[in-house]
Order: sequence, then C-alpha cells, then structure tokens
Amino acid sequence: MPAKGAHVDVIVGGGIVGLAIAWRLARAGRPVTVVDPAPASGASHAAAGMLAPVSEVTYTEAPLLRLGMASLRRWPAFAAELAEDAGLTTAGVPHDGGLTDDGGHEGAAGTPGLGFFGGAGIGDGARRALDLRADGTLDVAFGADDLAALDELAAFMEKLGLPVERLTGRECRRLEPMLAPSVRGGLLAPGDAWVDPRRVTSALLAALDRLNVPLIRARAGGLLREDDGGVVGVRLEPPPDGGETPSEIRAERVVLAAGAWSGELAEVPVRPVKGQIMRLRSPRPLLSRCVRGTVHGSYVYLVPRGDGELVVGATQEELGFDTTVTAGGLYQLLRDARELVPGVTELEVADVVAGLRPGTPDNLPIIGPSGTPGLALATGHHRGGVLLTPLTAALLVEGASGEEGELAALCSPGRFREIS
Amino acid sequence: MPAKGAHVDVIVGGGIVGLAIAWRLARAGRPVTVVDPAPASGASHAAAGMLAPVSEVTYTEAPLLRLGMASLRRWPAFAAELAEDAGLTTAGVPHDGGLTDDGGHEGAAGTPGLGFFGGAGIGDGARRALDLRADGTLDVAFGADDLAALDELAAFMEKLGLPVERLTGRECRRLEPMLAPSVRGGLLAPGDAWVDPRRVTSALLAALDRLNVPLIRARAGGLLREDDGGVVGVRLEPPPDGGETPSEIRAERVVLAAGAWSGELAEVPVRPVKGQIMRLRSPRPLLSRCVRGTVHGSYVYLVPRGDGELVVGATQEELGFDTTVTAGGLYQLLRDARELVPGVTELEVADVVAGLRPGTPDNLPIIGPSGTPGLALATGHHRGGVLLTPLTAALLVEGASGEEGELAALCSPGRFREIS
Repeated sequence: MPAKGAHVDVIVGGGIVGLAIAWRLARAGRPVTVVDPAPASGASHAAAGMLAPVSEVTYTEAPLLRLGMASLRRWPAFAAELAEDAGLTTAGVPHDGGLTDDGGHEGAAGTPGLGFFGGAGIGDGARRALDLRADGTLDVAFGADDLAALDELAAFMEKLGLPVERLTGRECRRLEPMLAPSVRGGLLAPGDAWVDPRRVTSALLAALDRLNVPLIRARAGGLLREDDGGVVGVRLEPPPDGGETPSEIRAERVVLAAGAWSGELAEVPVRPVKGQIMRLRSPRPLLSRCVRGTVHGSYVYLVPRGDGELVVGATQEELGFDTTVTAGGLYQLLRDARELVPGVTELEVADVVAGLRPGTPDNLPIIGPSGTPGLALATGHHRGGVLLTPLTAALLVEGASGEEGELAALCSPGRFREIS
Repeated sequence: MPAKGAHVDVIVGGGIVGLAIAWRLARAGRPVTVVDPAPASGASHAAAGMLAPVSEVTYTEAPLLRLGMASLRRWPAFAAELAEDAGLTTAGVPHDGGLTDDGGHEGAAGTPGLGFFGGAGIGDGARRALDLRADGTLDVAFGADDLAALDELAAFMEKLGLPVERLTGRECRRLEPMLAPSVRGGLLAPGDAWVDPRRVTSALLAALDRLNVPLIRARAGGLLREDDGGVVGVRLEPPPDGGETPSEIRAERVVLAAGAWSGELAEVPVRPVKGQIMRLRSPRPLLSRCVRGTVHGSYVYLVPRGDGELVVGATQEELGFDTTVTAGGLYQLLRDARELVPGVTELEVADVVAGLRPGTPDNLPIIGPSGTPGLALATGHHRGGVLLTPLTAALLVEGASGEEGELAALCSPGRFREIS
C-alpha cells in the first residue's frame, strides 16, 4: 500500500525536467519527493540552453516544432514564477510582476531582445537571474551549397508562418562583427531565445528547498510493483558513502524523469546520445545572439552568456553510456567555433563536459501516463530538454487542453508498443 | 649576521631545479631550506620531461647541445639515487644498485630501451618509479621540404658524432604503427630519453622530507641585503591563508631558482615563455617512443608514459605572466597531434595546463655565483629544465671540473652585464 499523503508523487531524476515537475507539483500543493544521486549534474549541466524551436526546425520534424513553439511561449511565465519562488527577484532588481504566457509573435522582429516573449512577459529580475535572453539565432552559411540550403529553409519557415530574415554576409557581420569574413549569408530567427540551464536547475533546487520538498540523494535501483505489475514506489540503493537513506519509498505515482538512464528502470525506448560541449570565458561578450552554422559537415552553435561566457556545442555521438571528453570531440568544437568566429582562439577554456541526451526512435519526447498503473513518464527529450521543460511540467501537472491536448497526444507513451 | 649552521643555504623556488639542488645539498650534509608558496606546481608540473638533447638540437645551439648531453649522462645515477633516497626502490622491485654516470654511447643504437644510458646505469625500480625511459625520439616529416630539412639535420648531427638514423615513411610506421599514413620519412635519435617530471618532483619532495629539509610554503618577497649589497637572506611574505611562517630567513647563500619569476627578486634577464600542454589518457600505449614533427609550421611532440598517458606539447607564446589555457592553444595542440597520430582523437583529455618557461637572451641557463656576495643563480632553463636538472645541481653543489668546467663557463651569470 502506498503511504497516503506522505509522498503522493515520487520523481525519479533530478535534472531540469524532473526538478521542474516537482516544483510545479509542490507549487500546486501536492506532496512530492525527488530521488537523484547527484541532482542537476547530468545532461542539464552539459546543455547549452538554446530555446530555439525555429532555427532548430528540420523538414521532417514539424511535430517537434509545434512542441517547441508551445513550450517557448510558456518560458517567460515559467521563468518569472521560478525566479520568484527561488527568491531571486530581490527588491534591488526591477521586477514587473506581470506574468503572462501568451508571449505570441507580436514583439518578434521589431523588438530586439524580446523576441517571441513580447514586452510584457518577464521581469528583469527573472531575466537576469536565469540569464534568459531572446535576441534570436543567426544561422550562417559559408559556401554556395550552404546558401542554397538557407534559401530552402527560409521558404519552408515562411510557409509555416515563422518569422525569419534572409541576410547577406555583410548584413550578418553588421549584426555580429566578430563573424568570420568567409561567412557569405545567414538566416535570422529573431524570436529564438536561450537560458542558462545551470542557473535554472540551481533556481529549481532553491525553490524546492523553500517549498520543503524532500530531495533524496540516492540512486533508484528499481520500481516497487504489486502482483498485477502496478507501480507503488521505488527501491533505493544504499549510498556509496555509507550515509543513511530509506531503502524504499512508496508513492501513488512514480514519474520517471531519468533522462538517458530511464531505460534502466522501465521498458522505455530511450538511448544515450553523447554530447561534448565547451565553455569559453571572455572578458567582454564576443556575440550578442546565438550563432550557428555547419562547418566541415558538422553542426556547431555558439551561445553567449551575460557574464561573457561563450558556450560551444555540441558533438552528437552514439557511444552508449560514455561520458569521456575526447581529443577528437574537443578538436571538432574548437575547429568549428574558430571557423565561425576566429576571435574565439583568444578566449580561456573554462570547462569541457560530456552529457548524455535521452534519444527516442522518433526524436519526440515521451510524456504522460505509461500503460502501467502508478507510473508516468517524462523522458526522451533528446536535444530539447531545456526548451521543452515548461511544457513537459505543464502536461504532467496540469494536464492538457485545447491545442496542447493535441501536443500531449504527440508525446504519448502509448505510441511505443514496448512501454510498460 | 646570517644565522650560522641553521640555514646555510636557502633555495628560493621549489620547482625541479630548486628541489634537486636542495636534495643534493642535503645529501652532501649541508643544512638547506627551500622556500616556495606552491612547490612543484609551476613549469615542472607542466613540462613533458623530454631528455632529448639530440633531437632538440638546432644549428645555432651547439653549446646547449653540449650542456644537454652532459646532463643526460648524469640522469641515470641521479634517478637511481633519487629513487633510493625517496624510498621508491622497494624490495619487491629489482634494483641493480650499480650507479654509474658514465653512460656514454655504447648501448645507443643497438640496445632498444637503453639508449645513451647503456645497460648498467639504472635499476628497474628507479626506471619505473620515475617513468624514465630511453627509447629514442622519432622526428617525422610530411612534405618534400620537411624531408630535405631532415637530411640536412642528419648530416649536421653525424658531423657532431651523434648517432641518428634516417628512415623512410614505411620504416617509421614499422617502428610506430599509429603514425599517420602521410608521414614520408623520419630521423631516429635512438639515445634520447624522457622522464615524468611530476614523478621526479614528487620523489624530490619525498627525499627532502626523509632528509628533514625544511620546506617553507611562502612567497619570497625580496632579498635581505647588507649595506654593501651583499645578500644575507630572504624576506618572506605572510601566507594568504593567515598561517604562520617566519617573516624572514637568513642564509650564507641564497640560491635563486625561481624560474620565470627569478627577475622579481634580482636583476636577472629572464622572461616568461608560456607553454600550453595537454595530457591524454589511453587504455593502451599508442606509441613506444617520443614522436615529434612540424605541422602547419608549428612544432609538436608526443611523449608516451608507461601508464598509457600521452603528453602533447607545447605552445611557445610570449605573453608575459599569463597562464590561461586558451581555445587557440588547445586547438593547435589537438590539430597537430591528430596530424601526426590520427588515433589520438579517440583518447580522453585528462589535463591541460599552461606553464611559464624561464627564457634567457641566448637560450642558455644562468647557473653559478652571481656578482653579488651571498647570491647564486640557477634559472633561465627555458625548455630544458628537466633535462638540465642533474647538471645544474652538480654545478651548484659539487662545482665543476674537466669538460664540465667549460660548460659551467657557458652558463656563467657573468656573461650578462645586468646581473647583480
């Protein structure tokens, strides 16, 4: 029997998705516990934090684009409420208090720095606390083939009603003077945004702490099941340092949000996709927006932070549970970043990490009740975990209606036969 | 008045040179104290440890070659005695006990793994404890120009009586199967050796500890001078952590072995030459000897350690006291290492550091009594600090006779007018 009241929901996984679900549950007054041996240390720690559904769109992934756009619209309110709950919107920092999540496209092209969020969505306090910015993404091209591909992409996006702007090489360099002289054209997605995922998970941990949500630093060794297979809790492994944690924890519902490791606890078609990512430190910002491009056939992006940090990501490697930082991965990042912005060579290398994205067979996340009573899933976010966090938490905590009902169906665990 | 007996010699600088001098002095029964805020953390920590006077020779540096050869001959006995004093030659490890420093060239070309050291120089215990190996250096060429340069170099070395071997690309790959297919030829210096400088400084610290040599972890703020300018000790800065150290220490002789920082305490023409260096980790050794080459105009070398580590060095940058690891430096090392041995891309990046070599106007070290009573110098070793350590310690501690008398003259501080 689940212990009623004590831990109605147990979230397995303390990455950005699991922590956000726990926070939204706690905020709604539901008892919840998070289980993770090392919260905020996996893919969320590695992630660049691009909130870029438009520039990330590909011809085959219209459903993912719809999910991304819906989640991006939720980001301003999510960020503002999170900053408030985490105690980050101090009196000294202006905070407009107006929380809207209808951001829409109004302010996109014409209002630098606000993008899809419009002008009313998020206060300066939250913006600064989470380093949330919406200055757009510039996708650049070097050769004639790249330029032709950008033209195609621009036409495709316009057909979808997405505001993009085709720029010459000179126009690109006017926006971003540090770009390589060899850049011959670009595509600006002015509504794309980005956030610092490390600040977001820190804020989530602070908010959970303020809401007195228990965080058990232990590894979930398995699910507790009734005879009929229904899930009634989680078995915990003893901590390696000999500390004291309960050996199991019972729950009405277990939410599996363990990213690439989700398949270790239940039948979920999730595989690890390794990404190596580098953080450079600059005395002054080299870029004022996200810049991406394809160099030597590999895709690279540069994300500038408010403090001068420049994130360079990311490799995509199918190597199982391997998180080694390799000479080859680092070489690729450095080579490609240099090609886009030669000035990066002067910057200090502050950090290189490898994370494991939870990939799925159709590149869409797996969100919602599983076929098994007592077990819900919030995993498989692949490259979109940070972007899709507000939508994921909303679907799990509030349920979906209207257009989001359709989106929920796209992410439904039921689309995979093997899930149980 | 110097405090007689207590600290006859004070060594300023706990890098490989300073620690070795202190050890040789203590071993000879002389009271000695070492002063360094962070021993073994500077250039010695960064260094690759090549003991390669032959492959490092250039046309203009015959004096440096002579110094290097003389010091290389001293390395076997130095290593064996150090391993013994540090307690590293345990009963379980064979140790021949035969300490000769006349290594000579006898075993060079014909005896793999022994090089200039011959067969009798050093026991297995010392060899393993310090990862001292003498399997030679292979200098490789990619283009016709490189090959011509190797031919010239081979002729020059043969004229000097140095045993080198000109190899075809195929012969190079037979020796080192992981070499790039684009390698078209090479020059083997079979007598070159290498050692792990981090193990050497650890052993020196252990030996000093066993010999009860005081090691004061403080920064030397200045020299104590008498009215006539004579040096009588060192003023110490208070440690930043508020710990207790003496405010000064008096000595009959101060030996300045502060590497790139030597110029901060006395008029010594030493400048910092920044080197960025990378350590890769390999499950099995990729190379069986040192490999070097010139790639895109920049010189790169790969040094294999017994535990599978592969050291890739090193940039040479004139940037003052800057020890930032930069994107550009790391890119150069990775690009060039890949060109020589493509398989490095698979290896883990274990460590990247920047050190400051103490460069001098004529690339020769500055060793011996200064013009000032009470002050001796052991600095300016530039790229040769590890190689030249045994000779430097011998010149400072035992004095020089015979051929080494001539070498001592080459290093004499008196050749620079400004030294005082």
